[in-house]
Amino acid sequence: MVLLEFSMTPLDKGESVSQYVGRSLEIIDASGLDYRLNPMGTVLEGEWDEVMAVVRQCFEKMQSDCGRITCSIKIDYRKGGKGRLDSKIASIESKLGKKLKT
Amino acid sequence: MVLLEFSMTPLDKGESVSQYVGRSLEIIDASGLDYRLNPMGTVLEGEWDEVMAVVRQCFEKMQSDCGRITCSIKIDYRKGGKGRLDSKIASIESKLGKKLKT
Amino acid sequence: MVLLEFSMTPLDKGESVSQYVGRSLEIIDASGLDYRLNPMGTVLEGEWDEVMAVVRQCFEKMQSDCGRITCSIKIDYRKGGKGRLDSKIASIESKLGKKLKT
Amino acid sequence: MVLLEFSMTPLDKGESVSQYVGRSLEIIDASGLDYRLNPMGTVLEGEWDEVMAVVRQCFEKMQSDCGRITCSIKIDYRKGGKGRLDSKIASIESKLGKKLKT
Repeated sequence: MVLLEFSMTPLDKGESVSQYVGRSLEIIDASGLDYRLNPMGTVLEGEWDEVMAVVRQCFEKMQSDCGRITCSIKIDYRKGGKGRLDSKIASIESKLGKKLKT
Repeated sequence: MVLLEFSMTPLDKGESVSQYVGRSLEIIDASGLDYRLNPMGTVLEGEWDEVMAVVRQCFEKMQSDCGRITCSIKIDYRKGGKGRLDSKIASIESKLGKKLKT
Repeated sequence: MVLLEFSMTPLDKGESVSQYVGRSLEIIDASGLDYRLNPMGTVLEGEWDEVMAVVRQCFEKMQSDCGRITCSIKIDYRKGGKGRLDSKIASIESKLGKKLKT
Repeated sequence: MVLLEFSMTPLDKGESVSQYVGRSLEIIDASGLDYRLNPMGTVLEGEWDEVMAVVRQCFEKMQSDCGRITCSIKIDYRKGGKGRLDSKIASIESKLGKKLKT
């Protein structure tokens, strides 16, 4: 299982792009994969092919009406890791002995 | 104001690095800046110099006992934008007319 | 066509990882796609599925003997863009009227 | 010493942004730091404060006439590492026993 965080943004639609980001979130939310949206991107959890398929779907949608797109992806693979959307944060809070802002 | 997401990881400490990430979170939590921790990084909000000072402090701490460090940073600047740790997510949820997983 | 830059690093193999990066470069070099290696990653040019297939191959190889892997990917899509491994740099040099360090 | 790769792009200037990237490269080229431009970003070598000062200068320039800016930064610190703009690539080529496309 991997955690994959990504953000995808059109460069040719001006500075307000939440309409396009919203369409991606519809795809993500309907994908069946577990995810967490944050102010700078969305983190998906799943097998490599599963999470990449979702990113590809978002790209195809955005490509349909955007002439230039920038996308950044960060992947964290850990053998046997599962449920890490929650456990990574819990592990840090446990080490510090307090709740953090999430 | 900018949003800055970053993650910082030692490469020479084996696959369990939450101890080192925990130290960064202590610095972040004590910085006085608003932030949100997510499974892949932490998003800070503030002026350029403010957020960069926090990242630098985390680096200095990690550099004190790590021989190799990888760090990725993503910045989103918007003129006049403030309170965007919450408003960016709210804007997408409002466009979709539903709550998303955060 | 997209430009895709990526770097992929094991977290559990100590601070010298060029052996693992070397294996990825063998895969990239044999892929038939055009690419440019730089000190922080490799930039591939091709269709989405082509470049992603190469990244996936590198991941599968690394996953075979690494317990934790971090990977960052950045994509720049431009409609109709081709030959951009060279033309993006040429365009900037042309604007500045001088050669830059590449 | 660190290697720092970054790219900085306005979101509100349409899909052709090489004019803005060109201004950043002027700042980089005049900084006195060693660097390498690639199709997806520029890699600087120097101490943390030195390379960050250059990124900040590029941001201040872009902020002067752009309403929204996205910036991604990747840092690779290695204790005692110097001259790594060339040596990282040389190390991989040496391992593979052949020249790669750079």
